[in-house]
Amino acid sequence: MSYGPHAAWLEGARDAIRTRAYYAPFAESPSAPAHAHASREASEAWLRAALGTRFVLDPSDAAAPRAVGDEVSPYTGERLAISSAAPDPAAAVARAEATRGALARAGEAPRVRACLSALARLERDVMTNAVATMHTAGQAFPMAFAGSGANSLDRGLEALAYGVDAMEAVSRRAVYTRAFGRGEPVRIEKHYRLQPRGVAVVMACASYPAWNAYPAILANLATGNPVVLKPHPAAILPMARAALHLRAALADEGLPQDALVLAPEAKGAPIGLPLATDPRVALVDFTGSAAFGHRLVQALPGKLVFTETAGCNAVVLESTDDLDATLDALAHGLCLFSGQMCTTPQNLFVPGDGVRVAGTRVAADDVEARLVAAIDRLVEGPSAHHLVGAIGSPATVDELETLRRQTTSGPARLVRSSGTVPVPGHPRATTRTPLLVGLPASDRALAGREWFGPMGFLLRADSRDDALAAAVADGAAHGSIANYLYSTDDAFVAAAEDAFAAGGSSVGINLHRHRPMQFTAGYSDYHVTGLNPAGTACLTDAAFVAGRFRITQSKRERA
Amino acid sequence: MSYGPHAAWLEGARDAIRTRAYYAPFAESPSAPAHAHASREASEAWLRAALGTRFVLDPSDAAAPRAVGDEVSPYTGERLAISSAAPDPAAAVARAEATRGALARAGEAPRVRACLSALARLERDVMTNAVATMHTAGQAFPMAFAGSGANSLDRGLEALAYGVDAMEAVSRRAVYTRAFGRGEPVRIEKHYRLQPRGVAVVMACASYPAWNAYPAILANLATGNPVVLKPHPAAILPMARAALHLRAALADEGLPQDALVLAPEAKGAPIGLPLATDPRVALVDFTGSAAFGHRLVQALPGKLVFTETAGCNAVVLESTDDLDATLDALAHGLCLFSGQMCTTPQNLFVPGDGVRVAGTRVAADDVEARLVAAIDRLVEGPSAHHLVGAIGSPATVDELETLRRQTTSGPARLVRSSGTVPVPGHPRATTRTPLLVGLPASDRALAGREWFGPMGFLLRADSRDDALAAAVADGAAHGSIANYLYSTDDAFVAAAEDAFAAGGSSVGINLHRHRPMQFTAGYSDYHVTGLNPAGTACLTDAAFVAGRFRITQSKRERA
Repeated sequence: MSYGPHAAWLEGARDAIRTRAYYAPFAESPSAPAHAHASREASEAWLRAALGTRFVLDPSDAAAPRAVGDEVSPYTGERLAISSAAPDPAAAVARAEATRGALARAGEAPRVRACLSALARLERDVMTNAVATMHTAGQAFPMAFAGSGANSLDRGLEALAYGVDAMEAVSRRAVYTRAFGRGEPVRIEKHYRLQPRGVAVVMACASYPAWNAYPAILANLATGNPVVLKPHPAAILPMARAALHLRAALADEGLPQDALVLAPEAKGAPIGLPLATDPRVALVDFTGSAAFGHRLVQALPGKLVFTETAGCNAVVLESTDDLDATLDALAHGLCLFSGQMCTTPQNLFVPGDGVRVAGTRVAADDVEARLVAAIDRLVEGPSAHHLVGAIGSPATVDELETLRRQTTSGPARLVRSSGTVPVPGHPRATTRTPLLVGLPASDRALAGREWFGPMGFLLRADSRDDALAAAVADGAAHGSIANYLYSTDDAFVAAAEDAFAAGGSSVGINLHRHRPMQFTAGYSDYHVTGLNPAGTACLTDAAFVAGRFRITQSKRERA
Repeated sequence: MSYGPHAAWLEGARDAIRTRAYYAPFAESPSAPAHAHASREASEAWLRAALGTRFVLDPSDAAAPRAVGDEVSPYTGERLAISSAAPDPAAAVARAEATRGALARAGEAPRVRACLSALARLERDVMTNAVATMHTAGQAFPMAFAGSGANSLDRGLEALAYGVDAMEAVSRRAVYTRAFGRGEPVRIEKHYRLQPRGVAVVMACASYPAWNAYPAILANLATGNPVVLKPHPAAILPMARAALHLRAALADEGLPQDALVLAPEAKGAPIGLPLATDPRVALVDFTGSAAFGHRLVQALPGKLVFTETAGCNAVVLESTDDLDATLDALAHGLCLFSGQMCTTPQNLFVPGDGVRVAGTRVAADDVEARLVAAIDRLVEGPSAHHLVGAIGSPATVDELETLRRQTTSGPARLVRSSGTVPVPGHPRATTRTPLLVGLPASDRALAGREWFGPMGFLLRADSRDDALAAAVADGAAHGSIANYLYSTDDAFVAAAEDAFAAGGSSVGINLHRHRPMQFTAGYSDYHVTGLNPAGTACLTDAAFVAGRFRITQSKRERA
């Protein structure tokens, strides 16, 4: 197979998904040579010029009867008013469906080359897409650049590598020779074809759209399933720009551009269910709320459905050699992008008798106070806005208030109030620092779901074993995508590894210099386990791609 | 990994599933050295002695409050009255569930060794299992020996090979080194664990139970999912014997025997749905009716469900160099095991202006007459009973009568009446030869479903293109597992290959000496495509195993 000018990326990725060691073909830094052609200023100028205009993906967009674009920048507080043509769900599926035959007949090599070309085009646009991500999702520029840039491209390339592995594992031709009964040997020539399954719907999320969308899109296109991409109504623009490059990359290989159809929705007028339940749709990838993810799974028996939703990620803080370093790591984890990440720690379990630190025991009250101080230091620094970003959704501001009110009565107590952080140049930015709530672990129902945003719980457990058991049980019952453990006791660490694994969750241990703690490395870290309610889409394993195509065969006798 | 004394089988299978070439580690012939320890007489004596007794899998069976076993031998017409302990569905799931932790903790090597040991034990028992299969499913002894013996073991080993490939592709440990920000490089040690999903239910079919059950059972046990095996009430005995060996093989490796629980049901008291919908059950493999397969898929959103059901397999008879050879192959295909196979041809499309034979055209009426004559020759021969076997279910006898009545009015005409075949030594055997019904292809609704048993349709099409289009359309609409084409025109063959593939079906071309035409070779032929209503379980691809386990990870910083 010839995979074209970017075949080396694919080779590297296919090697890396076996070793799970470090691999990073895309540059994380804006000052890297790969980004020398781009500048933040130019991208910001593009955005200013685009405000109030139509984003045109296709010449036919101009005649589209409807266009939507309801995003409000979390930094300026103003509507972008950049609208994209919005086909109704059946029309979007029909356009994608119309490319099905051509995409299937093209075979895998041009499809894979188009995916690699898309990665190259998306990489060249990381600067502009970062600005679009910042002013929709609310990510601070450094995260939008690295996380929604290189790190998301990594996950896309990784899914492509799994797809190519799966497709190449299927022989396309065989000669099978055997005698039937007492007869002479018969030679049977067999041909095997990979067949796509049908139209795929990819629903991106509001806060981190590229990271989940790229793997789903590329896995689908590589295996020949045309994609309807439905962005979250609060983050259409970054997905519209991605669609531009994906469609251009399809054209690079002579494939129909409508193998990637953008189907944006207006706020308050969701089209996810009509898209997903369309009988022509065979595959659905969804990132978003646990409630809607569950509803989709229930509504789509017989379809291939991958979800990444939410859970209540736990930290068990048992012991440490350096409490300040540990609390600093935790404070950083709680502040980063104001907790609007699927791997953000939320529920911090602390044994009631405190945390063992280099042989002595620090009382739980002191641990709390020092964590609050560590957060205060971080959010009071001059570059705090780079850390916390902005709040993407007004609902998160409401949730903060809802949770704060819970601390006025009942078991919850207020440990730290949420504040704001100034953003230079954006006086109207919506920012929030972490709200911390204390709860007894024995009465922690309030912490039994994801509180999306900068909200954390300090949960006092009777013992370290209770802390671990509660963390594991919550993940199994309510979902978890990432958990964290701090302990200097090898036996306790080993027990925790077993317990989290048996409970269907993953765990990061004693992460101090691994910063941020919630960083998830392409080609190395697995994602959603699929064993708890946080979803089914690992993104980064063979099961994410193996079912996206099927096999038909023909065989005939040969002389 | 050490896979034990039968590792060579696995090595051979892992190689063969890549090349798809001939591989046959199990002997098809009763006279092979591998079967020297066994004799048909001894196996029949075992069956006679077992009639009316309890089949004991486990010491606790003796105390079981309920036992069932309602099979009637299609050869003797008498109840076997061999009963097996029948736990209620919740109790069966609970027993399997109780082994989940031990099976998961054991890891893959002992589980894979147990699967290989099971294959070895099952191979040693092929003779006896053939007799059990004959007197439940109705297969003639040669088919029960080869098809439900070596060929079914092949498919089991093949699924195991896919499972081992998928599991070995996941690294268990990695060292990931990178610098975060401007800091020093950090070494992160990562451990990855394969996690089973939960209890698996495997529902076997009545006519060919081993062929689908072995792959599902072994794929599940290898990946660590304990299995509840529910045989069809008409074919419990072969699955009970298989359970005996599977449980012994688990014990060989120190694994809990209840990782394989037999849950037989009484006739008329189905337990499939209660088993499958039990919340502890995560995976379901079903072989059987299209209606129940569809119902299961609809009832189990979020579970991993594999089905093999039914369709209306087509033959397009366009041209041939040797009409007698072609009709002889078709007659053989129609007679074999009285059409009670998922790959049996059913709908024979013939162009209305006849079949081109070596430059001349043979009229459709003549083709029909010569096919009838070919069938008559086969079923009148002295060993016809080896070919047609017996009719496994009284419902099939009723269906024959239902279809015959359709020929007394409307578009259907009787082309060949169904008769019987004497079985030496079994004067009360229920046998039937093919009923052939003629229909215009333009008015063929009657042929738009599987008629399970020895029933075929001769469909007159306006042209060869109409014949092909109708065959493809029926497969897409009503399902198909195997289709057949006879044509000497390379261009038409190529068009047919494209059309069947695009319609989601497979096709065998000009199969004459490949006998029987419906033979499906382990390691080489793919099975259900999953692209039409005949089911989702390819059995023989990575997608059949990749989702049966998930991955959890732990990571920590190292100096």
